[in-house]
Amino acid sequence: MALIQTTFADSVGSISLDHYEKRNALSESMVNEIIASLDKFKSQGARTVILRSASAEKVWSAGHSVDELPRADIDPLPYDDPLERLLQAVRTFPAPVIAMIQGSVWGGACDLVINCDIIIGDETAAFAITPAKLGLPYNVSGLLNFMNRLPLVVVKEMFFTADLIGAERAENLSLVNKIVPAAELEAEVNKMAQTIVSRSATSISVAKEALHALSEASSISPIQYEYIQSLRRNAYFGSDYLEGIQAFTEKRAPNFSKPAPKA
Amino acid sequence: MALIQTTFADSVGSISLDHYEKRNALSESMVNEIIASLDKFKSQGARTVILRSASAEKVWSAGHSVDELPRADIDPLPYDDPLERLLQAVRTFPAPVIAMIQGSVWGGACDLVINCDIIIGDETAAFAITPAKLGLPYNVSGLLNFMNRLPLVVVKEMFFTADLIGAERAENLSLVNKIVPAAELEAEVNKMAQTIVSRSATSISVAKEALHALSEASSISPIQYEYIQSLRRNAYFGSDYLEGIQAFTEKRAPNFSKPAPKA
Amino acid sequence: MALIQTTFADSVGSISLDHYEKRNALSESMVNEIIASLDKFKSQGARTVILRSASAEKVWSAGHSVDELPRADIDPLPYDDPLERLLQAVRTFPAPVIAMIQGSVWGGACDLVINCDIIIGDETAAFAITPAKLGLPYNVSGLLNFMNRLPLVVVKEMFFTADLIGAERAENLSLVNKIVPAAELEAEVNKMAQTIVSRSATSISVAKEALHALSEASSISPIQYEYIQSLRRNAYFGSDYLEGIQAFTEKRAPNFSKPAPKA
Amino acid sequence: MALIQTTFADSVGSISLDHYEKRNALSESMVNEIIASLDKFKSQGARTVILRSASAEKVWSAGHSVDELPRADIDPLPYDDPLERLLQAVRTFPAPVIAMIQGSVWGGACDLVINCDIIIGDETAAFAITPAKLGLPYNVSGLLNFMNRLPLVVVKEMFFTADLIGAERAENLSLVNKIVPAAELEAEVNKMAQTIVSRSATSISVAKEALHALSEASSISPIQYEYIQSLRRNAYFGSDYLEGIQAFTEKRAPNFSKPAPKA
Amino acid sequence: MALIQTTFADSVGSISLDHYEKRNALSESMVNEIIASLDKFKSQGARTVILRSASAEKVWSAGHSVDELPRADIDPLPYDDPLERLLQAVRTFPAPVIAMIQGSVWGGACDLVINCDIIIGDETAAFAITPAKLGLPYNVSGLLNFMNRLPLVVVKEMFFTADLIGAERAENLSLVNKIVPAAELEAEVNKMAQTIVSRSATSISVAKEALHALSEASSISPIQYEYIQSLRRNAYFGSDYLEGIQAFTEKRAPNFSKPAPKA
Amino acid sequence: MALIQTTFADSVGSISLDHYEKRNALSESMVNEIIASLDKFKSQGARTVILRSASAEKVWSAGHSVDELPRADIDPLPYDDPLERLLQAVRTFPAPVIAMIQGSVWGGACDLVINCDIIIGDETAAFAITPAKLGLPYNVSGLLNFMNRLPLVVVKEMFFTADLIGAERAENLSLVNKIVPAAELEAEVNKMAQTIVSRSATSISVAKEALHALSEASSISPIQYEYIQSLRRNAYFGSDYLEGIQAFTEKRAPNFSKPAPKA
Ligand code: NI
Ligand code: NI
Ligand code: NI
Repeated sequence: MALIQTTFADSVGSISLDHYEKRNALSESMVNEIIASLDKFKSQGARTVILRSASAEKVWSAGHSVDELPRADIDPLPYDDPLERLLQAVRTFPAPVIAMIQGSVWGGACDLVINCDIIIGDETAAFAITPAKLGLPYNVSGLLNFMNRLPLVVVKEMFFTADLIGAERAENLSLVNKIVPAAELEAEVNKMAQTIVSRSATSISVAKEALHALSEASSISPIQYEYIQSLRRNAYFGSDYLEGIQAFTEKRAPNFSKPAPKA
Repeated sequence: MALIQTTFADSVGSISLDHYEKRNALSESMVNEIIASLDKFKSQGARTVILRSASAEKVWSAGHSVDELPRADIDPLPYDDPLERLLQAVRTFPAPVIAMIQGSVWGGACDLVINCDIIIGDETAAFAITPAKLGLPYNVSGLLNFMNRLPLVVVKEMFFTADLIGAERAENLSLVNKIVPAAELEAEVNKMAQTIVSRSATSISVAKEALHALSEASSISPIQYEYIQSLRRNAYFGSDYLEGIQAFTEKRAPNFSKPAPKA
Repeated sequence: MALIQTTFADSVGSISLDHYEKRNALSESMVNEIIASLDKFKSQGARTVILRSASAEKVWSAGHSVDELPRADIDPLPYDDPLERLLQAVRTFPAPVIAMIQGSVWGGACDLVINCDIIIGDETAAFAITPAKLGLPYNVSGLLNFMNRLPLVVVKEMFFTADLIGAERAENLSLVNKIVPAAELEAEVNKMAQTIVSRSATSISVAKEALHALSEASSISPIQYEYIQSLRRNAYFGSDYLEGIQAFTEKRAPNFSKPAPKA
Repeated sequence: MALIQTTFADSVGSISLDHYEKRNALSESMVNEIIASLDKFKSQGARTVILRSASAEKVWSAGHSVDELPRADIDPLPYDDPLERLLQAVRTFPAPVIAMIQGSVWGGACDLVINCDIIIGDETAAFAITPAKLGLPYNVSGLLNFMNRLPLVVVKEMFFTADLIGAERAENLSLVNKIVPAAELEAEVNKMAQTIVSRSATSISVAKEALHALSEASSISPIQYEYIQSLRRNAYFGSDYLEGIQAFTEKRAPNFSKPAPKA
Repeated sequence: MALIQTTFADSVGSISLDHYEKRNALSESMVNEIIASLDKFKSQGARTVILRSASAEKVWSAGHSVDELPRADIDPLPYDDPLERLLQAVRTFPAPVIAMIQGSVWGGACDLVINCDIIIGDETAAFAITPAKLGLPYNVSGLLNFMNRLPLVVVKEMFFTADLIGAERAENLSLVNKIVPAAELEAEVNKMAQTIVSRSATSISVAKEALHALSEASSISPIQYEYIQSLRRNAYFGSDYLEGIQAFTEKRAPNFSKPAPKA
Repeated sequence: MALIQTTFADSVGSISLDHYEKRNALSESMVNEIIASLDKFKSQGARTVILRSASAEKVWSAGHSVDELPRADIDPLPYDDPLERLLQAVRTFPAPVIAMIQGSVWGGACDLVINCDIIIGDETAAFAITPAKLGLPYNVSGLLNFMNRLPLVVVKEMFFTADLIGAERAENLSLVNKIVPAAELEAEVNKMAQTIVSRSATSISVAKEALHALSEASSISPIQYEYIQSLRRNAYFGSDYLEGIQAFTEKRAPNFSKPAPKA
């Protein structure tokens, strides 16, 4: 293991993202390491897991590894995408996962963080959803994750502008449970973890599993889903997606085409 | 066109309600003008639409044209009501609609505003849902709109008291995305519109459509719906509705009957 | 009637919990008195009901009567549990129920309060969900009540830590409609009640009933429910539940077993 | 009681429609008698109820009392319609209701019969759904009743042609459990009733209630329902409904207008 | 128009598939002609449409035009596939569509026929679903169409064997409304059409639309859908699909690979 | 392995129940052997599995091992019951499972058989659901299995009478795919298996998985489920269940109490 650091003590596991040269981007390798750690913690009977960055930097995680996204013509966010498997691993982990956030959280990393059970950050925490910058059509389960956790107008603002939401606003929106000063962050997270460890692990894991089932209970009909999937397909076969990925790689602003006037 | 003003430039359409002698009430005529403008903007390839009042006044819109409501004995909020058609047009418009709010927003206008994708107001913005003053039974899809966007206790407070929610509280509740000083309102709205225009229109329209489908995914069984419809029918055939409309027309407080004691 | 006090005047009913030697615990006797009062108020045509404690104390209600919970081996929160019947009575009462809160609200009392339509407290109001301290697996409909009303990360924090949420944070979270100074609390509640009484009772009761139906519209498949029920059963047959109840009775901290490592 | 005959013996209740001069039409009076009998049987601990006509005639029941249907402009099949209340009483009766059918079953009587738990007829049994002859828009819960019980192409054939389905085809379609010769019908029904009485009433009533809940689990979104309700409203405000009722009263074939060509 | 023949008289439209050299395969051109005819019939106020083959041949329709299916790597049955658009046009046509069947009906043509409202055939009628012969993963809405209309074990037999179901068995299964001798088929279909024309078009179109909504009410969660979509994607990127299309084109039996043993 | 016999050849696995002294009752031991065999077949890449009895006897399987059912006071059909695990294993097996039936199929074995994908029997095949004889409240997912596969009146007849449905009627009801003479049964089953093996395993497994997801899509709300669960609990704590199990063990007819008259 090279891209993350882990510890386990007193029923608390800790996973630190530690690949800052890539801004902790959630590459397939890093994702696999995290999933393996979660599996190990589960076998060790972890009662809480802390997910954090190894050190306080400007960026907590840059999100998807853009160079691992398909160039075009294929769904970039399928069910068996590495990140999707990680989200599933967090949702089904039988104890709470606490995200400890310092710095900015981008795109897929934002989806990862909101899938954690409890989120605590310092004043540098900030959150952005970036598919509108990449020309990428987000997947429906991901949209549902955000809808289940944030006010609808905020979900739309985040998806339509791709701009950062700062720490204070994130706290007001309950995007995070709380924001504390940087100097107190570790202590606050550890205190929360210790409280959880002192409670009944059985009672907690049943509640987590039931809330998970209820969270996925917003269902749509197959024909509606296929309609949305056809819109998504048109998008990932389209020019915006090509341009978005290209511009990201070239570290320049994308130059998206104007939409064709519609009948 | 006489009740609204419109402009279109740089992929941004703007619609200004401009019939203040009727407090911008959403009459069938005005609604038809708005829908026609949205259709035009769609054909022009608009990437954002701004919905606003023509000038800063005490009232943004008084809501439904009460003199266009049926007197009694017929559902006052059917699916093919003009306002319902407008809500549908906003929800299915293939780009974000930003509501820019100065002054108070009443009843049906409040439903219109929360169906917009992003809402920005100044300190005079205020919001009230008024069917409890009119004795009118609200439609279920309208209640779902509010439930999808606001905390349940707040939805109930608004529907049960019909009192105004002021700008600061509206911001805390995420009823609006943000409140800014009046002097900065237009600039803030334009900045948001420009950001959206710079992003991928394709990515945004897919996300909007998927969120729309998920918003309507709260379904109830036909028998439950028919039960609620029977309660609504008893209401619009009842004395409260007659008195509410009458009182509104006579600009006096309604004098609702006490409910009959129930078995 | 001995455990509560009631009044009825001007279409407003009031119920005061008045058994402070047991910290207003929701014993079967007290629950039956409250339900009987609600039935009486309904027959009297009440247009609003206020639910409060008889006097301002440190505790509003301690929640379930722990000594009435089954020792083990049987679902402690079945559909026909007295408290569940009370929640149903509040949800189906044909007029708004306002909770007036002074002091701390624990466990089942917290479920009762969030099922009220409008909640107003003073600075001493505080809220905790305690099953994780008792080793008790909460029921799915109860979890849905919280999910319908609070941000998901907050629901999890409350269920996983069992710690109190104070008045100011409760207001920011819309767990309550508003927090006012203790000296103004009664006046504020009465003003809200008077406003509601002046509105159309018919319009309000239809809206309440429809919102109730929509609140229960999050459905899951039988097989999912049976899976969760099996987890719950393992919990109430397990050692944590026995220890949690025992510790509570002995007024000491529980000493929960570590979860067995899982395959 | 005058329109029905009832008996109760050995835990089996029997209700015989006995108003042949009106072809056992399900008038409000007759419906109220049936519901009262079901309530009485419930209090007597009935383990099976048989619903039949008093004697073998050409018609089992003519269905809704057409002269009790509203002339126009109001939903003819609301939730609180007498027949709807009867369907609900049959569905929620805590023991099986067996329909014993001789002769033809029309319209609302057909909805009544398929809501019975078990249906046995002789060779004269025949079934028709008649709203297309009356110009009447059927209610959604009624359509769901048929969809839950019959192949979709058959539901459509019945609703679109209003023609009778004969005994043999009804048996093949499982519209009825079985068809037996007239001479054996009473014996067959009694044998089935005796078998049920010998089984566990508790096991049976739980299964019936659970199947009832699952039957109503096909839910649609409020906006879809309101769309269909608007179609229904246009229908009961329209000319076909007026002509259909008029023609029925005058015992002549209706002369429906051609549909207006659509855009 | 060259691939179909149409007539319109007495409110009944008729569409005859007439491209037997291609076994009436549902090519994009033929589909577009059928949709255009339906649109025309709608504008003419058609009260019934008959869909048939131009003459009695061995094959009613061969189904999808296999040479128009994508070779690989792209969903072969997306929402905007021509055949999907035709199914949607049939489902939303505001009057009944009667399928008149002589000869065998294959694959996509079978989906088309079961989406018709009423189906009448002669003794040569036979039905097969062929994706298992092509290695093609069927779409979820298509599977739901079959599940809504046929017993589950029969749906599976048809999808897993791809074998023909003959006329008599099809009648027993209610796959068709009825089977009549070839000499009586046209008369039977015309009689059914005339009956429908004599009924209330308004009542019928409301029932059809409501049944359509209820048919699509089987919804699944986004995450479930994405899981199935990932299975489908693996299939249309896989070797079976390539081989299936190739073998069909070469008019030989496919030689599918054995599935890899799974962990 | 001792209670079943298995073979594997040409991609077809076969499992024969072989414990006739216990009438092939589905004891925990036998269930575990079947599940282990399915797992083995999966690893071998089986494309079809045949589930049968070792020899043609009067009874195919007696169902649940009644002496393994809990005496009382605990849910006899929980999610983690051995038989439930077997049903899940059959439903998620990635290839078709064909049930080959000779003789009578009772209770839980009937649930097992209808969860198979394809069912073929001879003239001795017969099917009964027996909880009403045992006083046992069936689980909701099990009721849904039957509702998904059989006409509602038949499900009720089977659950309310516990009587056998014979081979011919089973075929008419599509409870089985087909009934063939005993002498042809093995050949017929093998032919069906060979056809399936010749088709695309990928196409088939995707269809099976999607149909499985759609089958579980009938969802009910938590509060409805908890209501039914309370009825079930009252049943398995009640006297009928005790008497039913006792009578079965003593091989005598149960003597169920009359239901208490209800208010
Ligand atoms: Ni999940
Ligand atoms: Ni019901
Ligand atoms: Ni559709």
